[in-house]
Amino acid sequence: MENLRKYLPILTWGAQYSRQTLVNDLVVAGIVTVMLIPQSLAYALLAGLPPEVGLYASMLPLLMYAVFGTSRALAVGPVAVASLMTAAAVAQFADQGTPEYLGAAMALAMVSGLLLVGMGLLRLGFLANFLSHPVISGFITASGIQIAAGQFGPVLGIDVHGETLVDVLVSMYHNLGQLNTYTAAIGLASLGFLFWVRRGLKPLLLRIGLAERAADILAKVGPIVAIALTTIAVWSLGLEAHGVRIVGEVPQGLPAIALPPMDLSLWVKILVPALLISIVGYVESISVALTLAAKRRQRVDPDQELIALGMSNVGSAMSGGFPVTGGFSRSVVNFDAGAETPAAGAFTAVGIAIATLFLTPLLYFLPNATLAATIIVAVLSLVNLGAIKHTWHYSRTDGASMVATILITLTHGIEFGLIAGVGLSVFLHLYRTSKPHVAIVGQVPGTEHFRNISRHEVVTDPQVLSLRVDESLYFPNARFLEERVNQAVAENPGVRHVIIVCPAVNTIDASALESLEAINFRLQDGGIKLHLSEVKGPVMDQLKRSHFLEELTGEVHLTQYDAVASINPDLASGATDAPRASTGSSATG
Amino acid sequence: MENLRKYLPILTWGAQYSRQTLVNDLVVAGIVTVMLIPQSLAYALLAGLPPEVGLYASMLPLLMYAVFGTSRALAVGPVAVASLMTAAAVAQFADQGTPEYLGAAMALAMVSGLLLVGMGLLRLGFLANFLSHPVISGFITASGIQIAAGQFGPVLGIDVHGETLVDVLVSMYHNLGQLNTYTAAIGLASLGFLFWVRRGLKPLLLRIGLAERAADILAKVGPIVAIALTTIAVWSLGLEAHGVRIVGEVPQGLPAIALPPMDLSLWVKILVPALLISIVGYVESISVALTLAAKRRQRVDPDQELIALGMSNVGSAMSGGFPVTGGFSRSVVNFDAGAETPAAGAFTAVGIAIATLFLTPLLYFLPNATLAATIIVAVLSLVNLGAIKHTWHYSRTDGASMVATILITLTHGIEFGLIAGVGLSVFLHLYRTSKPHVAIVGQVPGTEHFRNISRHEVVTDPQVLSLRVDESLYFPNARFLEERVNQAVAENPGVRHVIIVCPAVNTIDASALESLEAINFRLQDGGIKLHLSEVKGPVMDQLKRSHFLEELTGEVHLTQYDAVASINPDLASGATDAPRASTGSSATG
Repeated sequence: MENLRKYLPILTWGAQYSRQTLVNDLVVAGIVTVMLIPQSLAYALLAGLPPEVGLYASMLPLLMYAVFGTSRALAVGPVAVASLMTAAAVAQFADQGTPEYLGAAMALAMVSGLLLVGMGLLRLGFLANFLSHPVISGFITASGIQIAAGQFGPVLGIDVHGETLVDVLVSMYHNLGQLNTYTAAIGLASLGFLFWVRRGLKPLLLRIGLAERAADILAKVGPIVAIALTTIAVWSLGLEAHGVRIVGEVPQGLPAIALPPMDLSLWVKILVPALLISIVGYVESISVALTLAAKRRQRVDPDQELIALGMSNVGSAMSGGFPVTGGFSRSVVNFDAGAETPAAGAFTAVGIAIATLFLTPLLYFLPNATLAATIIVAVLSLVNLGAIKHTWHYSRTDGASMVATILITLTHGIEFGLIAGVGLSVFLHLYRTSKPHVAIVGQVPGTEHFRNISRHEVVTDPQVLSLRVDESLYFPNARFLEERVNQAVAENPGVRHVIIVCPAVNTIDASALESLEAINFRLQDGGIKLHLSEVKGPVMDQLKRSHFLEELTGEVHLTQYDAVASINPDLASGATDAPRASTGSSATG
Repeated sequence: MENLRKYLPILTWGAQYSRQTLVNDLVVAGIVTVMLIPQSLAYALLAGLPPEVGLYASMLPLLMYAVFGTSRALAVGPVAVASLMTAAAVAQFADQGTPEYLGAAMALAMVSGLLLVGMGLLRLGFLANFLSHPVISGFITASGIQIAAGQFGPVLGIDVHGETLVDVLVSMYHNLGQLNTYTAAIGLASLGFLFWVRRGLKPLLLRIGLAERAADILAKVGPIVAIALTTIAVWSLGLEAHGVRIVGEVPQGLPAIALPPMDLSLWVKILVPALLISIVGYVESISVALTLAAKRRQRVDPDQELIALGMSNVGSAMSGGFPVTGGFSRSVVNFDAGAETPAAGAFTAVGIAIATLFLTPLLYFLPNATLAATIIVAVLSLVNLGAIKHTWHYSRTDGASMVATILITLTHGIEFGLIAGVGLSVFLHLYRTSKPHVAIVGQVPGTEHFRNISRHEVVTDPQVLSLRVDESLYFPNARFLEERVNQAVAENPGVRHVIIVCPAVNTIDASALESLEAINFRLQDGGIKLHLSEVKGPVMDQLKRSHFLEELTGEVHLTQYDAVASINPDLASGATDAPRASTGSSATG
């Protein structure tokens, strides 16, 4: 039962469900439904799919999330970046407008969903960590730029194709002659209106006395007004006869429950794009969920969230939909409107179902240009070029990862951009730790403290060389340690004892152990003893599982002071005749 | 001039060259030449090339290393693993025995050489670090097994093909009918003799009064005896007429200096195998060089070694050779025989040249079976199955990397095995650091020390939650930290202050900074202040380059004691009324 509760959070919150919560959740569902309808149509078009597919992807997935999800505010459904990724992935296997295209999109949702569920059951959520913040942030910025650029096609009535920003811009330039004045008028007017709604409406509403939260919500459902007005304009002025493209007939009725094409070779081919969509979607979703949960001190279980998001995608695949995830602005509206339980999401699904059953005829005259305008306004909030500057200023390696991810995504496509970004950030991380800081230390006179000889006035024994390593010892820096010890010994010919001081060493892996053994034997050949000092408990436990401690020519000392004292009691106590005092302001310390 | 000396170490040691050193180096060169002739022939055959190519690869490369190398004992030339890798790489582009095959092998040496020189000039030697010890050790073991298995073909007179151990064994089984009794007799006798030379000869020589070092060297040149005896046997008994395959006519004369095929598309195609050969060759070579240098307290410059090895390969490519690197047993003989300068290598090249000019007719009747036997005996020293047990015992993740590398190499080919091994070790490293140890700490009563509440009897304030993170904060664990703090706060509803204790944090990257900012804002939403304590100097410098310290709701304290004292002076001084003392023996600490 405990396990069932864990995998079905609905059992927990459902048991405490009250009439007051119900009323609350119903109101929230109404607001989110109004916001979700245009978004789901627009993102379906962005993914290259018929508009109704967006509605289908906003029903069963929401019910699934209500059953499996742990966040009380997350609103799942089609989102911009996942839709762009879907378009890029599916275009490799089928032509837009064909049943194969829709089938591939459904299969993509299915594989992505199964991967997420699998990751959740196997507790592999840490995989998402491999997307470093600069990489995901750069990727989303690049996706936003590319989506916005592409949507200027429908806004102006121009055909635009291409998988990279460069292709999109070139195709837009070539097709500029197709520009339709009526479409452009509607598109640009919608764009202007939506920008005003975003920037100017909220202050206005506040001025006329609305509460902050209500103003926020009203500003976010603004797109429905643009949709209503432009639909009426097209209908009343007969603009479709002048070449304004409209949504047209949207099938009325709920989607049939069916499996996506069970074509194993297709499933294998879409594995990599499905994995990328899964991880990007999960990272977006869990960030929103954690942020909103923290505001009310609620818990979100990251592994269960993988299962919930996976089941949502499986649900989408089985009801004619495409990949979905938790959307940022939608979840914030859900939260601000006061969603108390995931039931709000379930009621939203019902709202969308009602719309699909009864309201689709109203969408007939809706111009595509308006939907494209809503996408542009929505995705521009994803573009954060200022983050490049901050990140670069904070860390060169992180800044480089971010810039590379953006440039590669825009020039070589989104999948390659994402993979290259992850590869680069892992590489730069390994590079950064491959040459750790190693200081030669000496004793601060009259104390038991040891400090860098290039930074402090310390006493050293010419027979004893103490090297403090400020990093865990593992394969990226194992050989570096060998070289560093070799170099230090070659530079100090009188040395008889080398002490490696290990307070910052959190682990010693097999490569580093091999290096330590090599160092030990090489020093032995040169008549020098190797000692360790200040080894942490867990590291010592690990070393005891090898033969290293038996082979070690010197000893392991609890503290560096003990080490020096056992080798040269006179020096340690300050009574030596010939201390070598190093002082200085060298920058190497 | 200083720079010239750096890139041309010959200018340094050449200036001090004396007559005594000359005599010494000449003697060494004689010994190494005798050892190198059969090895170079055998490894050329292993690479699928005519035997003389092995001799060609043992001239100019040695001269190049003498000019550019920094190790006084390293002996470069064809080696087993690089030869196997060459065969696997070149077989993808050309059929064995064709001029294209030789051309591709030369191009491989050229690209590999240029990559190494480039890495040396750009100081990219750390790239070799990505081959963790378990991976390279597993890879060499697997290569040794595969080479040995394959060489049983020529030993028995059977045709054997295949790029994996499985393929090799299957093809051997199918062709078992080809077994040639004479060949098998020669091959197995050579094998037995060579094993005896390796195991039994040295003790015998020691017993009859030879010095240890001389016995070692004699035992290592043993193969030449097997070669002489079996060559005489074939010649005198006319065994080639009975189907014993012999080396046959080896062209007399030095190789022509010429460029490998300048086919850019070929160069691009062999880039990955060339990179793998470069890195594996470099890792083998630098390990030997460092070990031998340390015995005499000499310096080896790892970046210059890249250049030297690169130039050796360029030299090989330009004189009809194939990829070369520093060989282990050969370098040890060089060292034990007393090589004092890289000139010994240059003289060895002259020795090989003389052999190529005058002695190749003697090789006519040399049976391939004998050469195959020398390879088997040589490579079995590479196979170290015991290392699996030790490594597994020492660390599960390292053991898993090693086993996976061995299995994948044997079943899916050497290139894939190596790449998979590197990928897996990087992945396991990131995994290991993705969930760092985080302890909730409390104050040891009456002291300024803070310890894990699950391991020690400590005092905590229910309003203050102190989390000590025992790892650097960076992208693999950034989100984990958010979840951990969220969880801890949700479990301790009375908390008003969270302190992150950072003595083990060596770096905070942009992802972790983002997480800290998110934690800060989320805690603020919940009315909780975030503090940091014991932040290291360099990390503090980095944080100052961001806005985090301005946004931080709490403060940064030098020590954890200061942090607690500034929040609750009573508790810190031990005067509080309601300390919560946690004690216990929980295993989570």
